[in-house]
Amino acid sequence: MEVATQAGVYINSVCGGDGICGKCRLILKEGAVKVEPTTLLTRDEIKKGYVLACQTKAEGDIVVEVPPESREEKGKILVDKDARRFRGLYAPLKGKVYFKYDPLVQKMYLELSPPGLQDNLADHPRLYRQIRRQRKIPIMQTGLKIMKTLPRTLRENKWKVTATLGIRGETVEVIQVEGGDTTKKNYAVAVDVGTCTVVAHLVNLNTAETVDAEATYNSQRIYGEEVTRRIIYAEQSGPDKLKQAVVGDINNLITALILKNDVKLNDVMALVCAGNTTMVHFLLGLDPARIRKEPYIPACTSPPPIRAAEVGIKINPRGLLYCLPSIASWVGADVTAGILATGLYEAEELTMLIDIGTNGEIVIGNKDWMICCSASAGPAFEGSGVTCGMRAAEGAIEKVNITKEREVSYTTIGNTKPRGICGSGLIDLVAELFTSGFIDRSGRLNSYKGKRVRERNGELEFVLISADQSATGEDLVITQPDIDSLIRAKAAIFAAINILIGSLNLEFEDIGKIYLAGGFGNYLDREKALTIGLIPDLSLEKVQFVGNTSVMGAKMALFSREALEVCYEISRKITYYDLITHPNYMDEFMSAKFLPHTDLDKFPHLCIGTAGTSQR
Amino acid sequence: MEVATQAGVYINSVCGGDGICGKCRLILKEGAVKVEPTTLLTRDEIKKGYVLACQTKAEGDIVVEVPPESREEKGKILVDKDARRFRGLYAPLKGKVYFKYDPLVQKMYLELSPPGLQDNLADHPRLYRQIRRQRKIPIMQTGLKIMKTLPRTLRENKWKVTATLGIRGETVEVIQVEGGDTTKKNYAVAVDVGTCTVVAHLVNLNTAETVDAEATYNSQRIYGEEVTRRIIYAEQSGPDKLKQAVVGDINNLITALILKNDVKLNDVMALVCAGNTTMVHFLLGLDPARIRKEPYIPACTSPPPIRAAEVGIKINPRGLLYCLPSIASWVGADVTAGILATGLYEAEELTMLIDIGTNGEIVIGNKDWMICCSASAGPAFEGSGVTCGMRAAEGAIEKVNITKEREVSYTTIGNTKPRGICGSGLIDLVAELFTSGFIDRSGRLNSYKGKRVRERNGELEFVLISADQSATGEDLVITQPDIDSLIRAKAAIFAAINILIGSLNLEFEDIGKIYLAGGFGNYLDREKALTIGLIPDLSLEKVQFVGNTSVMGAKMALFSREALEVCYEISRKITYYDLITHPNYMDEFMSAKFLPHTDLDKFPHLCIGTAGTSQR
Repeated sequence: MEVATQAGVYINSVCGGDGICGKCRLILKEGAVKVEPTTLLTRDEIKKGYVLACQTKAEGDIVVEVPPESREEKGKILVDKDARRFRGLYAPLKGKVYFKYDPLVQKMYLELSPPGLQDNLADHPRLYRQIRRQRKIPIMQTGLKIMKTLPRTLRENKWKVTATLGIRGETVEVIQVEGGDTTKKNYAVAVDVGTCTVVAHLVNLNTAETVDAEATYNSQRIYGEEVTRRIIYAEQSGPDKLKQAVVGDINNLITALILKNDVKLNDVMALVCAGNTTMVHFLLGLDPARIRKEPYIPACTSPPPIRAAEVGIKINPRGLLYCLPSIASWVGADVTAGILATGLYEAEELTMLIDIGTNGEIVIGNKDWMICCSASAGPAFEGSGVTCGMRAAEGAIEKVNITKEREVSYTTIGNTKPRGICGSGLIDLVAELFTSGFIDRSGRLNSYKGKRVRERNGELEFVLISADQSATGEDLVITQPDIDSLIRAKAAIFAAINILIGSLNLEFEDIGKIYLAGGFGNYLDREKALTIGLIPDLSLEKVQFVGNTSVMGAKMALFSREALEVCYEISRKITYYDLITHPNYMDEFMSAKFLPHTDLDKFPHLCIGTAGTSQR
Repeated sequence: MEVATQAGVYINSVCGGDGICGKCRLILKEGAVKVEPTTLLTRDEIKKGYVLACQTKAEGDIVVEVPPESREEKGKILVDKDARRFRGLYAPLKGKVYFKYDPLVQKMYLELSPPGLQDNLADHPRLYRQIRRQRKIPIMQTGLKIMKTLPRTLRENKWKVTATLGIRGETVEVIQVEGGDTTKKNYAVAVDVGTCTVVAHLVNLNTAETVDAEATYNSQRIYGEEVTRRIIYAEQSGPDKLKQAVVGDINNLITALILKNDVKLNDVMALVCAGNTTMVHFLLGLDPARIRKEPYIPACTSPPPIRAAEVGIKINPRGLLYCLPSIASWVGADVTAGILATGLYEAEELTMLIDIGTNGEIVIGNKDWMICCSASAGPAFEGSGVTCGMRAAEGAIEKVNITKEREVSYTTIGNTKPRGICGSGLIDLVAELFTSGFIDRSGRLNSYKGKRVRERNGELEFVLISADQSATGEDLVITQPDIDSLIRAKAAIFAAINILIGSLNLEFEDIGKIYLAGGFGNYLDREKALTIGLIPDLSLEKVQFVGNTSVMGAKMALFSREALEVCYEISRKITYYDLITHPNYMDEFMSAKFLPHTDLDKFPHLCIGTAGTSQR
C-alpha cells in the first residue's frame, strides 16, 4: 500500500490500511511476500495469489496486478443516488423523550503516571486505575488484542492515551487504546433494517448530532418481497446469501456515509441496529425457520452486544454491534425502538403506535401496560407490488390532489418529472379517487370511462400521469388490482387495530394519541389516511405522523445507556397478542375492506356522500 | 473423513471431526470440494492444496493424498516417556485448604417445556429461564455461535439438553448446549507452565478427581535456559516462536492425556494455567519486554478468562482458558497458586513459602499480611546447567548417601541404572560431600585425591558413579563448577530469605512453618537442605516439602470459583519487595556462599566439626 501510494498508483481503501475493509486487493504475480492472515479473502482467491495491499510486506522485488475492483474511483457512492432521499424519513418528534446523555461508546483521554520502583503496577491495571480515577466504573473487561499492544502504546505516547469504552451488558469493555487525545473522533451508525429498505444514520457520539443519512433497498428482495418468502428461501438454500445481502447493504451505506463526510472507518466505534425480528436473525446468521411456523418462536429476542466484525460489518474492527431487543417473532426491534422514540411506554394517556412497513405493527398502552400485535399488510404502502409504486425516492409522487372538476395535481420528491408513486402518494390517490367518486366504497373503479379511467388487458385502470409528462415515457396508472392491494393492506391494519381495541374492551374514543410511523415518505396526509380507513376516526390533533421511529429509537439508544436499558424493559414488559391464530381476524379483515369501513358507525366524523364521496 | 474411514484409511484426528485439532490434513490432487474456512492451515498450505478431512465435502470424485503426518499411529504418545515421571511432583498437602465445590465450568441437564401459543418465549430466553429455575444465576451471556445452533439443538433433542456454564468474571457464559444428558463428561486441565518444565493434570470436574498427569520440558529452552534470555530473544525476533513452543507443549500434553484416558477433546471444557509472569505473557502473546528492565513492569497481572482457542490451545473450541493472576514481574501466578494451595494467606502463625524453580520465590506472611520477593537462582536445582544434572525423570539419582567410610549409596527414580542426578539428588550430594569432608565450607573439593576425587581439564571433580554402573556408559560426576553453581543457587535463595526477614525486623525463630515447593523430584531431604543452608535453621517439624504447589493451586481454582476469587485477592493483597535493586543483596549473597553460611550463628543447631563436617 505504501509503495503503491509512493509510486502514484492509487488502490482502493476505506479503512486506511487497517486490514478491515478488504478493498485493497492485489494479485501477486512474482516475488516473495509476508502476509497477515485474513478472513477477507476466500480460499480460491488465496490460491489465485490475491493479497491485501495493506497487509502484505514485500520481501524483495515483486510484481503485482491491481485488479479493476481495487482501482480507486474517488467519490464513488455505492448506494443509489435516489436512495439518499430516504434520509428524510427521519423527523424529530415534538414530544421527544430525553434521556441522560451517556453514549454506549465513549472516549476518555487519560494521562497516566509512568511506573517506577515505588509504583510498579502492571500496564493493564494501571490503565484501569487511571480510568477509575476519572470515572466510577466498577466492572471492566479488555480483550487480549488490546493488552498485546498496550505496553507499546502507553510508552510511545508518553503515557497519554485515549481509551474507548463500550457498554457490554453489565460490564464496560475497553475496546481501544489510542495514542494522544483522539476524543474528538467518536462516531457511530444507527441502522433500521427493514424488509424493504435499509436506512443508516451516521452520528457524532460527542455531540449527539446526526451527521448524515443514507438508505438503500434491502438486497434480500431478490429472495422474496415478503419476510415469509425469504425465510422459506433460507430454509431451502441456507441463510448465508440473505445474511450477505443485508450485511453488504449496511457496509455500502456506511462506506457512502464515511466517504461523503470525511470520517475514518476506524473512528466508527459502534452500530445500533433496529429491525424486524427476521431481519435481525438474518443479520446475525440466526436460524429464522421457526418464526413462520406456529407457535412462531424466534431463536432469540435480546441478542447480546457483539463485535460488529463478527457478522462482517466493517467499522472499527473492535467496534460493537448492538441489536435492539425484539418483542416476538412478528413484532420486532423496530417496534421496540418506536415505543422508545414516541415515549409510549411512559405516556399518561392511552396511546397507540401504528408502524407500517411490509408488516403493520400496532401497539396500545401507556406507562402501566402495553400490548402489541402484527398484521401482514404486504408491501403496498412501501410502493412495492403496485404497478407504478416506488419507494420514497427522487421522482416519486408524494402528494396527489383531485379537484371537484376531477383535475389531477401532484408534487414529486425532488420536484422532478414523476417516475412512480410512493406510499404517501398512494394513500392520497386512493382517498382522492374515493372522495371524487372515481371509486366506490368497495374500491371498485366506476366503469364510467372518462379520459382517465380505461380498460386494459381486461382490467380497469386510472391514468394519473400521461406518458408525455412522466419521466419513464409511459403512463403512470393505478389499476383495479393495485387499489385492491392497497385496500387489503389498510384493511389488515385496521382489522388488527379493531381486534386489539375490542379485546381490551376499549373504544376508539379512549385513545388519547395515535403515532403513525413508517416509510411512506417525508409526509403523510393524516386526513386522507383517515378517509381510506387506515387509522381510526379520531380528531386529527390526536394523530401524529412520526416517520421512521425505528432509526430514531436506535439513535436514542446510541446516545444513552439508559435508553438502551429502557428498550430491554419495554421488550420484557409488553404483551404480544397473536392475531395469526385469532378466530375473528378474518371477519374483521373482510369488514375493513371497504372505504372507510363496512360499519360506517366506526367513522362518525366522516361524511360519506351518496356518490360514495366523503367530507369531513 | 467419513469416506476415508469407510474405506479403511485411517487419518489422524484428536478432536473427532470438529475441525479444531488440525490433525486430519489431506492434500487435494484432483476434483472439486467445498471447504469450511479454517485458521489451522497456512496460506502456503492452502495453495498447495491442503484441506482438513473433517471440514471438506467432496463435490464429485476426488483424488487426495494422505501425507505422512496425517497417518494415524494408534497410541503414540507425543511426550517423552520419561516426562510422565513428573506427575509425581504432585503430592497432596496435609493441611489442604478446602473450598466450596463449585467448578469454574459446570454442566446442567435441562428439560425445557416446549413452546406454545400461550408460552411463546424465544428459544434463547427459554433456555435461560430453565437454567434459572434450577439455579440462581443473575447475569448470563451467550455467544452468537451457540444461538445459531440453539433452535435445532433444542428441537432435535426434544427440549432435553445439557448446557455448559463457564465463569467469566462477574457473568456466567453458556459456552455449549448439547443434546441429551452429557453431564457425566466434563473435564478440565490444570497446567503449570514453568521455565523448565510444563506439567498438566487432567481432572474430572464432576468428581474433583485427578484422572492423570503428564509433563514435558518447556520447548522454549532452545531460546535460552533463563527467562531473561528468552525475553531478549523475543525482543529481537518477536514473541511468536516462544508462544508457539509453549502452546505446542500444552497441546501435546493434553493430547497425550486424552488419548491415554479415552476422553474426547470436546469434553475438555476448561484449562487453568499457573506459571511465572513471563511464561503467562508468552502463552497469551503479550509483550514481555519490560519485565526485564527497571522498573520491571508486566503488561498485565490478571488476564481475563478467554477462549482457549484464542491462543491456539486445542480443547473444546468454546472452552475457556483461565490464567491465574500474577503478583509482579518476577513473582508469578505459580506463587499465587502456591499461596492458595498451602493456605498461607489464611495462616494464623507466621508462615514462609519457598518455591524453587529457575527462580526462587519467597513469601512470608499470614492471614493479615504477605510480602514476597524473587531471587535469580538459576536452573541448577532443576538439574540444568550441571554436568550430570537432569530433570526428575526415570534414571535420575534422587537420593544420595555417603557413609563414614566414604562409600556412596543412592537410589534412582524408577530403580533403573542411573542416567544423571535430579534436584533432590544434587542437594543430597552436596550435603553429603560436606558432612563427609569431601568439600569444605566454601564448597571447595579437597585436593586429596582418593579414588573418587580427580582432576580433569584442570578442574577437580567427584565421581559419583563409575561408567560401568551408569546407564550412559560414562562416569557420573559432579565438578567443582557444578558445586559452585549449586552453592550460588542456594546462596541466592538464602540471601533473599535473610533480607526479607531482616526488613521485617523478624528472626528465623519467629517463623512457625516453612513450605518448600518446587520440582526437585518426588522427595526432598529437609535435613540436607538445611545442612547446605538452603533453608533457615529451624526445627525440621516446621519444614514441609509440598512439591508442585503451582499445579495444585490451579486445580483448586478449577474446582472452586471461591478459590479463584481468593487468587485475585492474594494478588491484590500481597506486597512485592524488590531485591534486584536492593543495596544489601550482593553482600548477603556473598555471605551465603558458604556451607551452611559465613555466619554460623544463623545455624545454631548444626554442629560443624573441625574437618568441616556437620552433625545435628
